[in-house]
Amino acid sequence: MKSKLISENGAEKTYAIILDTGDEVKKSLLDFAHEKNLTASNFKAIGAFERAMFGYFDFSKKEYEKIPVNEQVEVLSLIGDFALDEKGAVQLHAHCVVGKRDGTAHGGHLLEAFVRPTLEIILTESPAGLKKTFRPEFGIVLIDLDAAG
Amino acid sequence: MKSKLISENGAEKTYAIILDTGDEVKKSLLDFAHEKNLTASNFKAIGAFERAMFGYFDFSKKEYEKIPVNEQVEVLSLIGDFALDEKGAVQLHAHCVVGKRDGTAHGGHLLEAFVRPTLEIILTESPAGLKKTFRPEFGIVLIDLDAAG
Amino acid sequence: MKSKLISENGAEKTYAIILDTGDEVKKSLLDFAHEKNLTASNFKAIGAFERAMFGYFDFSKKEYEKIPVNEQVEVLSLIGDFALDEKGAVQLHAHCVVGKRDGTAHGGHLLEAFVRPTLEIILTESPAGLKKTFRPEFGIVLIDLDAAG
Repeated sequence: MKSKLISENGAEKTYAIILDTGDEVKKSLLDFAHEKNLTASNFKAIGAFERAMFGYFDFSKKEYEKIPVNEQVEVLSLIGDFALDEKGAVQLHAHCVVGKRDGTAHGGHLLEAFVRPTLEIILTESPAGLKKTFRPEFGIVLIDLDAAG
Repeated sequence: MKSKLISENGAEKTYAIILDTGDEVKKSLLDFAHEKNLTASNFKAIGAFERAMFGYFDFSKKEYEKIPVNEQVEVLSLIGDFALDEKGAVQLHAHCVVGKRDGTAHGGHLLEAFVRPTLEIILTESPAGLKKTFRPEFGIVLIDLDAAG
Repeated sequence: MKSKLISENGAEKTYAIILDTGDEVKKSLLDFAHEKNLTASNFKAIGAFERAMFGYFDFSKKEYEKIPVNEQVEVLSLIGDFALDEKGAVQLHAHCVVGKRDGTAHGGHLLEAFVRPTLEIILTESPAGLKKTFRPEFGIVLIDLDAAG
């Protein structure tokens, strides 16, 4: 993973982040978030994965049902954000669309994905923090604009 | 629906808008546009819908053929914009990709969608206005960069 | 193709670019890049195509396998970027998701696409340049943040 600050307007910073073959996307993005102390970012990306694991949230089980993608796919869209949870830990939320060899599109909540050969991410960190609060009715954390910033 | 101004550069403003369970997306976004007097915005979003109605534009009928999605889906991508029509009314245009339980992706022009449990929207309002003009050959309004701003 | 500068923050510029019926997307975007001397841009778009040709990268052949889409489709997402290659020529990289009449989503690497009736692109040019380097192991150019800017 390499990154470059490509634009800076006051406290708003935009980075290009380039992942390479073998990089795991969630780990790489969280490493980047820790390195830069991100608190309120949003990003979009394209590239390709060697394989990926997506999730579909099952409300009755309050957990993600796994959707394995065990083949090389084009990453048609990866959109996501970072916010801080109640303990101050940065949380990644990202959803992905991939295209298979036959052109059909598939996707879900990003659980894990391995890059091959590249993933090009444009990420903007905003000056105002975003917070996430645990929602017991769903069993997950969601962005909460009422939480003290 | 809740919103927060997360970045401001001159006349360019970026908001986080969070929709909650039961919120209808088009109505919520238009309410937000009216509240903030939006004239030229673009946004991207991820989250999940309890159900949605998408459209596919039929050129012979000059209307949207309806594509109902009557199940919980992950919102993999919602991309759209706001511009003003010839009467000065704000017009929403948004296209959406959703992922079903089996990981297949579906989508179309956003006609209606009900959030569950969240939709995270990052929207940027630009200082220069965008105008839409009615195009009788299609029966719809399209962004017209020649229209007086 | 028409364009309008909708926001300017220091050296960062954001444009709305509107393509019309019959415009080919890659040619139009490259024409725009040459006209504005783009060196490091990223964009997202929605609209509709009369037809398109997508690609799926085949690692064994080091080339794109073609995925023809010979029907009117909604453009649900077009995400891409511009960077300069080792010879200083601007390179376009874009991935696309389209929706067919039955609501199924398809896509791939953008090889060619013809607009009908509109494609609405929001593009941001960043002050820091991005460079691409030829990677012989893949047979393509990839963004290289170590290349002299």
